[in-house]
Amino acid sequence: MGDVDQGLIGVVMNRTDVLSARERLRSSVHATPVLRSDYLDRRLKLSLHFKAEHLQHTGSFKFRGAMNAVNLLETSGFEGTICTHSSGNHGAALARAGRLAGYAVTVVMPMGANRLKAQSVVDEGGEIIWCAASNAARLEAVEALQRASNAHLVPPFDDDRIIAGQGTAALELLEVCADLDVLLVPVGGGGLLAGSLLAAEGVSVYGVEPALADDTARSVESGIRCGIDQSMTICDGLRASVGMRPFEMIHRDVAGILTVTEEAVTRATAQLWRDLKSWVEPSAATVLAAVNTYRDKFEGQKVGAILSGGNVDFSALQKAPYQRWLSDELSSRA
Amino acid sequence: MGDVDQGLIGVVMNRTDVLSARERLRSSVHATPVLRSDYLDRRLKLSLHFKAEHLQHTGSFKFRGAMNAVNLLETSGFEGTICTHSSGNHGAALARAGRLAGYAVTVVMPMGANRLKAQSVVDEGGEIIWCAASNAARLEAVEALQRASNAHLVPPFDDDRIIAGQGTAALELLEVCADLDVLLVPVGGGGLLAGSLLAAEGVSVYGVEPALADDTARSVESGIRCGIDQSMTICDGLRASVGMRPFEMIHRDVAGILTVTEEAVTRATAQLWRDLKSWVEPSAATVLAAVNTYRDKFEGQKVGAILSGGNVDFSALQKAPYQRWLSDELSSRA
Repeated sequence: MGDVDQGLIGVVMNRTDVLSARERLRSSVHATPVLRSDYLDRRLKLSLHFKAEHLQHTGSFKFRGAMNAVNLLETSGFEGTICTHSSGNHGAALARAGRLAGYAVTVVMPMGANRLKAQSVVDEGGEIIWCAASNAARLEAVEALQRASNAHLVPPFDDDRIIAGQGTAALELLEVCADLDVLLVPVGGGGLLAGSLLAAEGVSVYGVEPALADDTARSVESGIRCGIDQSMTICDGLRASVGMRPFEMIHRDVAGILTVTEEAVTRATAQLWRDLKSWVEPSAATVLAAVNTYRDKFEGQKVGAILSGGNVDFSALQKAPYQRWLSDELSSRA
Repeated sequence: MGDVDQGLIGVVMNRTDVLSARERLRSSVHATPVLRSDYLDRRLKLSLHFKAEHLQHTGSFKFRGAMNAVNLLETSGFEGTICTHSSGNHGAALARAGRLAGYAVTVVMPMGANRLKAQSVVDEGGEIIWCAASNAARLEAVEALQRASNAHLVPPFDDDRIIAGQGTAALELLEVCADLDVLLVPVGGGGLLAGSLLAAEGVSVYGVEPALADDTARSVESGIRCGIDQSMTICDGLRASVGMRPFEMIHRDVAGILTVTEEAVTRATAQLWRDLKSWVEPSAATVLAAVNTYRDKFEGQKVGAILSGGNVDFSALQKAPYQRWLSDELSSRA
């Protein structure tokens, strides 16, 4: 805010912004592996290429955008403190990025957030301010914090630096799999999806959203960005409403938004544990849930999918009916 | 069998046998990644390098030995059928290796074996013959099968071809981390440990064993190979007694055998899910359980550890007290 220009990259973003972020992040971000499963490919009759962002620093793609923003702040000579609001993964990512660069970081988090994500914020040296569990309360709390402390806001998704950073995951995936037909990306606030759209020119990019937090699907359909104040989806990383900047790019370029049920997400989570041997969180598993749900759409194609994170709230998955779907799927292959 | 010499590699094995297997397997085996966790390293005050064999074909290191044996059979012009006995992972691995080479594979499995491992044998085209859940019953059943069918036995661990193949995992790990101080390897029948001892000259190699199946620890201590007929450990891959050939090498070269409790294994399984984002089975988690249990021994060192597999029997983990340890550990970081 105030003394720092948020529009460092410019309002009209393009692939070059993602390429610059890639160079900037080369030494600080893991080039995560692309994982395959013979079994899933055979069962679904397609070729699936999973970008393993659960293996990124702090366990999610969020470190890419956070580190990009912090690097740009450092380059600009910024010397103050940083704040944000987050359901958890962006908060932990920014706390780590801030710690590496020597900035104090405060994170506004909604009550009831994933406990492991909150612990991770603290482990990385961040401070948490709790707020009520609504998107409106998050924004109010972070505005109050900014007024009180003059901290610089690094937003979780509605920010060009963040969008460019998040796009580097798709860029790396395309370096390994040049000829993808389709790319599937989870969408909460839309930073990862917007960045992926910039990075993946020529590929059909779909956003995937839980039906219980389908604001992006409704926004794209109506052409008017609409919000969601509070969602109970098990996908705790996808409860935010789509941001203004991401929505502009998504509305213009996305091939479609696919919605998935809570049962489909939970079963896909178990399948990724069991068949890909990857401990991903439900928000990440939406991409496999979409392949399972819309199977005919993707048959025979070369499909990329971003596994967005691995900070699983196991206590939430132990509640009914999630526990039943999970155990059922983990105990045998259908 | 009869018409094929099992001693293809020779009775006195050395590192060259593992190097030859590595060349033979280069195109058919995944060079699995080496995974790190900042969090675990910080908490345990050492540097841990995990060889991710849960990402190997059929979800365990067993495919290395099985494929090596099958490749050697092919080279020798063998045209019959193949059999084995297995708690699951070797069976699935051999079924796949056999399928790729065009050999029919029959697997003797003990009742009560991990259901996913049994499904995997069938998915890979193998046939299962069930036997009682003791090591003696396994050997009896496979002998009866050989008499009836004249099938060639590819044993799960007591075989030079298998030992050389399994050693390639440690060899690859050392290619990435040349200066390991210590290497930790789970031990059931001892094929992986014997192969690792051959591969890792100059490194202190420890075997890790559940206290409920501590026959190798007792054998190394007494100098006399002793068996275990039936174990109830949650580590379903480590219930076999140490084999004759592996024991000779283990007794000669191992730095020690470390035993771990069921609680330590279950908590370590949860930690590897949560902190390494890796869906490993309890047998694999023994290596982290050993680091947790014998922490002073390894502090400050560069430690390699082989994550042997990822075919988790979730229904077994849902029984008390395993379920409590697992949920407890997954719900927060201590």
